[in-house]
Amino acid sequence: MPRAPFDWIDGATERRERAGLVRVLRSRAADQDLLDLASNDYLGLTRHPAVTRGAADAALRWGAGSTGSRLVTGTTALHTELEEALARFCGFEAALVFSSGYAANLAALTALGERDALIVSDAGNHASIVDGCRLSRAQTEVVPHADPEAVRKALDAHDGPALAVSDSVFSVDGDAAPLPELAAACREFGAALVVDDAHGLGVLGEGGRGGLHAAGLAGADDVVATLTLSKSLGSQGGAVLGPARVIQHLVNAARTFIFDTGLAPAAVGGALAALRLIEAEPERAGRARAVAAELHGRLTAAGLQAARPDAAVVSVRAPSPEQAVAWAADCRGAGLAVGCFRPPSVPDGISRLRLTARADLTQDQVQWAVDTILRTAPTA
Amino acid sequence: MPRAPFDWIDGATERRERAGLVRVLRSRAADQDLLDLASNDYLGLTRHPAVTRGAADAALRWGAGSTGSRLVTGTTALHTELEEALARFCGFEAALVFSSGYAANLAALTALGERDALIVSDAGNHASIVDGCRLSRAQTEVVPHADPEAVRKALDAHDGPALAVSDSVFSVDGDAAPLPELAAACREFGAALVVDDAHGLGVLGEGGRGGLHAAGLAGADDVVATLTLSKSLGSQGGAVLGPARVIQHLVNAARTFIFDTGLAPAAVGGALAALRLIEAEPERAGRARAVAAELHGRLTAAGLQAARPDAAVVSVRAPSPEQAVAWAADCRGAGLAVGCFRPPSVPDGISRLRLTARADLTQDQVQWAVDTILRTAPTA
Ligand SMILES: Cc1ncc(COP(=O)(O)O)c(C=O)c1O
Ligand SMILES: Cc1ncc(COP(=O)(O)O)c(C=O)c1O
Repeated sequence: MPRAPFDWIDGATERRERAGLVRVLRSRAADQDLLDLASNDYLGLTRHPAVTRGAADAALRWGAGSTGSRLVTGTTALHTELEEALARFCGFEAALVFSSGYAANLAALTALGERDALIVSDAGNHASIVDGCRLSRAQTEVVPHADPEAVRKALDAHDGPALAVSDSVFSVDGDAAPLPELAAACREFGAALVVDDAHGLGVLGEGGRGGLHAAGLAGADDVVATLTLSKSLGSQGGAVLGPARVIQHLVNAARTFIFDTGLAPAAVGGALAALRLIEAEPERAGRARAVAAELHGRLTAAGLQAARPDAAVVSVRAPSPEQAVAWAADCRGAGLAVGCFRPPSVPDGISRLRLTARADLTQDQVQWAVDTILRTAPTA
Repeated sequence: MPRAPFDWIDGATERRERAGLVRVLRSRAADQDLLDLASNDYLGLTRHPAVTRGAADAALRWGAGSTGSRLVTGTTALHTELEEALARFCGFEAALVFSSGYAANLAALTALGERDALIVSDAGNHASIVDGCRLSRAQTEVVPHADPEAVRKALDAHDGPALAVSDSVFSVDGDAAPLPELAAACREFGAALVVDDAHGLGVLGEGGRGGLHAAGLAGADDVVATLTLSKSLGSQGGAVLGPARVIQHLVNAARTFIFDTGLAPAAVGGALAALRLIEAEPERAGRARAVAAELHGRLTAAGLQAARPDAAVVSVRAPSPEQAVAWAADCRGAGLAVGCFRPPSVPDGISRLRLTARADLTQDQVQWAVDTILRTAPTA
C-alpha cells in the first residue's frame, strides 16, 4: 500500500513550527494605515500619480497582457522604448526587458555561463543569482562575501572563459560590493563582470544611474548589469544591460526570455513613467541615501547594532528569530511596517529588522519611525 | 594578454547565422493591422474593455508595483482575491500566484522535488518544467512523449518519493497529455502528479476550467496544477493550485515565491476581470476549440500536415526552417500574424507554423486566414 504522495510535507511543516520559522501571508488593504519602511519602493514612486497613470494608460492602450513570447507577439513598441530608455539612463549600449528581475538573472547567468566556463559568485548573492549559477552549464565557485582577492584567486586557478557575479548592494545588510576591485580582478584575467544592480538603480550614482555608473563601469565592453523594475522604478519586471552583442546573444539563447511571456504593458508603462520622473527630478537618489544615513545614525546612536548603509537598506540586528518577529510585530502594532529577515532567508543565520529608506519620507516620519523602533526594541 | 571576455559570442552568432537561425525582435504598434493567429490570447480577452479596465483600475488603486516579496509587503487583498477565485474556478483547495508561469513551474518542481525524490518528466515538456527539474535537488528521468507506460516503468524502478510532471496541452503541437493514464500510473506507485495547465485553462473542461478539471483530477489530494495568467486570462503571472498543505509548503520553501517581488496589481486585476468574464460567459472555451477544429479541418483537407488539435493550438508542418520563416513572412505580408517554431525551440527539430485559435474570431476571419495560409504555402 503506497503512502499518500504529500504526507512528507507534514513533517517539514512540523519541523518549521518547532523552529518558529513558519511564514504566513498577510494581505494588505489599499488604504492601510501603516508607515512603510518594509517595501523596496526606495523612491516612493509606486503610487506616484504619474507612474500609476503610466501603468493604467499602457493597459488601456496595449492590453492587459503582452499576449506571447517577446519573439512572437510579446514585443510592443513600448517594450522597445523602455529598453532604449534604460540603456541610455544607465549608460549601456543595449538593454533587454524580462518579466522579472529573477528571470533577468537566470537569463544572464545561463546564457553567459557556458559549459566550460567558471562563474565566481559572492556568498551573499541574491537567490536568483544562486539559481542562475545552478541552472547554467558552467562550474560555480562561491567565494567569501565582498572579497576581491578571493575572486582573483578563483579566476587565476581557472583556465578558460570566466565571469564574476555580484549584487551591487546586498539586499540583507545593505552593504555595497567593492565594484572597482572586482572589475580590476576580472580584467587581470580577461573575465567578464556581471552585477545585479537591483538595489543600486535609482539610489546610487549620479541621479540614480546605479552602482555601475557610480563606479565608472557602465558601458564597459566586459560588464553586464542586471536590474529589476520592481524597486526604485515602482513597477514589475527586470532587465539585462550590456554590450549589444551580449544582448543579441540573450535574445537568441536565454530560455527565460525565449520561453516566457513578455512583460505586461502596464508594468512597462509604469517603469517608463518612473524612469522619466527620475530623469526630471535627479535629487530623489540622494534623498533616499540621506534618509538611510539618518535612520542608521539615530538607531546606532541609541545603541542598536546596524551596518552603515551604502544605499537605502538599513539592517538592524535582532538577538533571535523569535525576538525579531516580536519586534516587527510590535512596530506593526504601533503603525510601522518593517521587514523581518530570519533563517533560512539570511545567509548567516542572523535575524534582522530590515528597514528601507524612502526618498519621500518626511523628517517627522523618520523621527517617528526611529522612536517607534527604539521603543519596541527587545531589552538585551 | 587575456582575450576580451565576450569575444566567444561572435562565434556563436556566426554559427547561428550560417544555420539561418538568428532571431530578431520585431516590435508591434498598438494599432497594428494584422489578423492575430500568433498570440496565446485564446479567448481574445487581453484587449477586452473589462479586462484592460480591471488592470488599469488596479494600478490606479494599488500602485504600479506590489513593492516587495509576497512575504513582506507584496501581498495585497487583490492577490488573495485572485488566489481564492482561481482555486474555486479550477476546483482546487488552494492557490498561490507568482510573477510568471515560468516562476510557478520552477517553484512547484523545486519545492516538491526533494533531494531523494524522482521526477519523471515528459520529453515534450515546456522549458520552464525542464529548468524546474534541473533546479530541483531531485533526480530527473525524461520519458518519451505522452507515454504513460514509460512513466509507470520509471516510477516502478524508483524507491522513495516521486512525482510525474507533464504539460496538459503541449505548446508546440497542441496535443493533450493522457492525464487519466498518467494519474493511474502515479497512483499505482503513490507518486504525485504535477500538471502544467498553461494551454488548458480557459480552453479545456467545463466552461474552461482546464485540463485537470476535464479529467476529473482537479482537487485530488495527490495532484498539483501550475497555470499561467498570460494566455487565456490575457494578463501576466502564474499560479500553483493544489491541496492547502502543498500551497503552505510553497509559501515557506519556494525560492521563486520568497525571493521574487509579488505580481504587479495591474496583472492581478486584469486576470481577475478575465476570470469573471469566463465565469459569466462559459461558452468561450468551446468556441476556441471549435475554431481550432475548423482551422485544422480546412487546412488538412487542402493537403497540409497538421496534428488534430486537442485545445486551441494548431501546428502545421513546414518542410524546413527556411521555408517556415518564408511562409510566416508571406502570411505577415498578406496581413496575417502566425507563429513560426524552429530549432532549437522545437523538441524534434521539425519546423512549424503555429496557429492559435481565438474564441473571438469570426467565420469570415477564419476563412480568410485559411485562404491566406494556403495561398502562401511552400510548394512541395
Ligand atoms: C538583489 C536582487 N536581485 C534580484 C531580485 C529579483 O527581482 P524581481 O523581484 O524583480 O524578480 C531581487 C528582489 O526581488 C533582489 O533583491
Ligand atoms: C506550457 C507552458 N508553461 C509555462 C509557460 C510560462 O508561462 P509564462 O509565460 O506566464 O511565464 C508557458 C509559456 O509561456 C507555456 O507554454
